[in-house]
Amino acid sequence: MHDDEQAIRELVATWLRASRAGDTETVLGLMAEDVVFLVPGHPPLRGRAAFAAGQAGLRDVDIEGRSEIEEIRVLGDWAYVWTTLSIVVTPKSGGAPVRRSGPTLSVLQKQHGKWVIVRDANMLAVVPG
Amino acid sequence: MHDDEQAIRELVATWLRASRAGDTETVLGLMAEDVVFLVPGHPPLRGRAAFAAGQAGLRDVDIEGRSEIEEIRVLGDWAYVWTTLSIVVTPKSGGAPVRRSGPTLSVLQKQHGKWVIVRDANMLAVVPG
Repeated sequence: MHDDEQAIRELVATWLRASRAGDTETVLGLMAEDVVFLVPGHPPLRGRAAFAAGQAGLRDVDIEGRSEIEEIRVLGDWAYVWTTLSIVVTPKSGGAPVRRSGPTLSVLQKQHGKWVIVRDANMLAVVPG
Repeated sequence: MHDDEQAIRELVATWLRASRAGDTETVLGLMAEDVVFLVPGHPPLRGRAAFAAGQAGLRDVDIEGRSEIEEIRVLGDWAYVWTTLSIVVTPKSGGAPVRRSGPTLSVLQKQHGKWVIVRDANMLAVVPG
């Protein structure tokens, strides 16, 4: 497998693992300073600092994610990755878990020899229980 | 403005104009044969033929769209474009219009000298009336 493709697979795996562990520092290291996150129903989330601020709102839930990589295409120092992501959000207080699933499409750039997410489109929808 | 950026702006404008006019042939010419459309809550729509088949289901509605281009980045023969798209879907039978709005993130490729959409992430959500 292409080294870059392998590095991007590891980025996706690290993202899920660090998110589950609440390791925001590691997650922030996987995105560009000027990253933009796009989701339905909310304004774009612009920048690493805004992402970090948003993480505080997730202290009261456990998030467990599973990602299937559908495609990785490396275009020199740029790449895109399409995944199917499934997450289960469970309140730490013991409420009912909410399942969300759907595709993601991310644009990545190799910055200083390391792949980071630059733009991220998240199309997760609630899975009826 | 960069020629490629201008060509991509024209692609976006042509897409909206041709969609509104019901000119599926023109819209199909703006996408790669193996295009993939990603939206929340539905499986990926794979290929130009699947897109064409889906258009038949839109015969009974008028769709009017408006697109703000947030960013275009050209990476050699590849590019991505991020837009904010607003559409109004009105049943031809005269029912109430439904407004949807949200970001899109598309990956494009220059094929035989012409830009086409290769992957498209659509994050439109219903705007409460």
